[in-house]
Amino acid sequence: MEDNLVGNVLVAQSGGPTAVINASLAGIVTEALNHECIEEIYGGLNGVAGILKEEIIDLAAESQQVIRGLKYTPGSALGTCRFKLKKEQDFARIIEVCKAHNIRYFFYIGGNDSQDTAAKIAEAAGAQGYEMRVIGVPKTVDNDLQHTDHCPGYGSVVKYLASTIRELACDHESMGKNNLVSIVEVMGRNAGWIAAGTSIAKRRNQPEDAPHIILLPEVAFNAEYFIAQVQECLKKNKFCLVVASEGLVDTNGNFVAALDNKDAFGHEQLGGVGEYLQHLVETNLQGVQARSCKLGHAQRAAAICASATDMNEAFLCGREAVKAAVEGKTGKMVALVRADSDKYACETILVDLAEVANGVKHFPENWIADDRISIGYQFNKYIQPLIQGEVAVPFENGLPAFVRLAKSPVQPLLPPYELV
Amino acid sequence: MEDNLVGNVLVAQSGGPTAVINASLAGIVTEALNHECIEEIYGGLNGVAGILKEEIIDLAAESQQVIRGLKYTPGSALGTCRFKLKKEQDFARIIEVCKAHNIRYFFYIGGNDSQDTAAKIAEAAGAQGYEMRVIGVPKTVDNDLQHTDHCPGYGSVVKYLASTIRELACDHESMGKNNLVSIVEVMGRNAGWIAAGTSIAKRRNQPEDAPHIILLPEVAFNAEYFIAQVQECLKKNKFCLVVASEGLVDTNGNFVAALDNKDAFGHEQLGGVGEYLQHLVETNLQGVQARSCKLGHAQRAAAICASATDMNEAFLCGREAVKAAVEGKTGKMVALVRADSDKYACETILVDLAEVANGVKHFPENWIADDRISIGYQFNKYIQPLIQGEVAVPFENGLPAFVRLAKSPVQPLLPPYELV
Repeated sequence: MEDNLVGNVLVAQSGGPTAVINASLAGIVTEALNHECIEEIYGGLNGVAGILKEEIIDLAAESQQVIRGLKYTPGSALGTCRFKLKKEQDFARIIEVCKAHNIRYFFYIGGNDSQDTAAKIAEAAGAQGYEMRVIGVPKTVDNDLQHTDHCPGYGSVVKYLASTIRELACDHESMGKNNLVSIVEVMGRNAGWIAAGTSIAKRRNQPEDAPHIILLPEVAFNAEYFIAQVQECLKKNKFCLVVASEGLVDTNGNFVAALDNKDAFGHEQLGGVGEYLQHLVETNLQGVQARSCKLGHAQRAAAICASATDMNEAFLCGREAVKAAVEGKTGKMVALVRADSDKYACETILVDLAEVANGVKHFPENWIADDRISIGYQFNKYIQPLIQGEVAVPFENGLPAFVRLAKSPVQPLLPPYELV
Repeated sequence: MEDNLVGNVLVAQSGGPTAVINASLAGIVTEALNHECIEEIYGGLNGVAGILKEEIIDLAAESQQVIRGLKYTPGSALGTCRFKLKKEQDFARIIEVCKAHNIRYFFYIGGNDSQDTAAKIAEAAGAQGYEMRVIGVPKTVDNDLQHTDHCPGYGSVVKYLASTIRELACDHESMGKNNLVSIVEVMGRNAGWIAAGTSIAKRRNQPEDAPHIILLPEVAFNAEYFIAQVQECLKKNKFCLVVASEGLVDTNGNFVAALDNKDAFGHEQLGGVGEYLQHLVETNLQGVQARSCKLGHAQRAAAICASATDMNEAFLCGREAVKAAVEGKTGKMVALVRADSDKYACETILVDLAEVANGVKHFPENWIADDRISIGYQFNKYIQPLIQGEVAVPFENGLPAFVRLAKSPVQPLLPPYELV
């Protein structure tokens, strides 16, 4: 039920990009066109950092091909930021910019920091008596937002990594003489969702399939136990594939990749977790070859191997955000819930922004297997539906043809503002 | 013209796998079925190492789906080895195994070491007066084989890396505040073909596109010049994407990633080139963020993003090898030549195995631009056709469904043999 608050939309993106963050943007633009109370559809560049500087573009001026192309284009098409609004003055300026451009619908696509920002913007508008609906749209490869079953962006990173592990397994199996240890360093500073997700690369009832060892930030790293498990694995399999979260910590909660290893290896350790484990294996196991790969930002940008389910849900979250705002909701984030049915079905609900902000949802303890290096079968049911379907990214002359926004600027109406 | 040497085929794979090495195997099996003089089609497991041990399987017993599936399955389906035949006795054993199984057609899929092995096997058969046709099939992501325009495997690794760089560019562009340096470490110990290939990620007439700096093993690394170029790039672009060959060397020919950097950084450097450059940038440029990724073996196994042209040519090389052998040729490798036409066309010729073996084709000096960190436009014409077309890898339950050989064993006929 629309309540006819007439005005403009402002949408912005924040935090680390994902393969499908722009699908949410496309969902917002597409849905906004359906509502007569929405006049202009603006985009804020580089999150709140750009909005403070009144860097605003006209999204309605973009071609339909470009808006459609956003669904498979990685990165944050509007630009992003890690800027945190702190000062009173910053919030006042945001509201001032919104007032100047008659923004009545404000959408912020991001992770928990961004939802915190959105919550505070909603509060600031309320405090000033300025009617503006603020709705958050979830996004994070880390899957660590509370109050949502999963986050748009997560299914795609898992599909990409699990596919890559299947490819690596074909490679390693053919090289294997029971002496190859291959370490794949994956994202996940605080939560092991991404590393755990790669367990789906195993075929059902094929325990010999990669990955063989999964190291989560939730499980304190024990080097001796790890080495023993690697040895055990090499006795049974042609190779041992280890997936390690970048945020792996020791029993004291220190990142292992930042440890001072001078005593053990005679030099300081600089690299990421992957290289750390590679050297650990090579130093402790004679005749064993270790290799590592670090997919880095490539994993969160891997649009070519994105999950169609994830992309569709990201798009849906954008649409639902607009519908909610038009219906009068504010201070909410769109969250995903799955129906309690055998066949996967996903719906959206609204949750309070303030409740989502700043919490971290860790990988559930009861899904970690007793050996602490593998994932229980219950998790399969959770992850399986999220990686279904392939996205048909168009290729042009042999390479993916991603789109770029034309970014037609909206005339600034206020004096300049200095970011401090 | 067939000359009716009746007998069996033995095919094996050697060296590092590629995304399309099994397409050559599929080509050999497919073509072998067309010739009545060929009775059995055997595969040797793990290259010559397995053949010495008489580890032979029956490829004709594989299902047609599996043979078709080889075209998009990475890794070496028959297993591979880096075993070098050295002793007189080893060669005698190989011929003995071939005689026992009436092998009259021997195909070896591999890089230059493997072609050397094939040349020596042809010689050993000849010396014993045993009629067996030996044909090499080229394979290497490194593209460093002489006497062939390019190598099956190369187009796919370039397509994958250039696509990944386009994805990273979308990601970085949205993050960029002119202070992000992103380093992508790629394969290439001796030759810069792979690193140079990524230059195709730039769109025509868009010099601001990534990659911005390409570091080849053919160009001695100069840290000061590199840092200056990074600074220059960050003045013009939102980010600086650097592609670095793993085999990057300094003016003395030493690998830079193995340098003792204690003086400069107070600690020894352990990581690969990517992490080395990351630290170099972070130490020398204040306020600049550096990130690295190392795609490692994932790049040579990236079947999902393989080039259809490359896959088809790999298949073609397999078929042509069989045709040549049936026509009485031996001691040859199938090589690719491109027609001197505007439209790309690729044919095969035969070159002497002995001429291919052990040589390295470096990236041509005249394709390296004057600034020594970018690639001349002439190279575009070379690389463009090799990455055309996408391979439709079938997905099952959200993940690529690669095939595995059933590996029905052929009964050994000889006493066991000890590998030394």
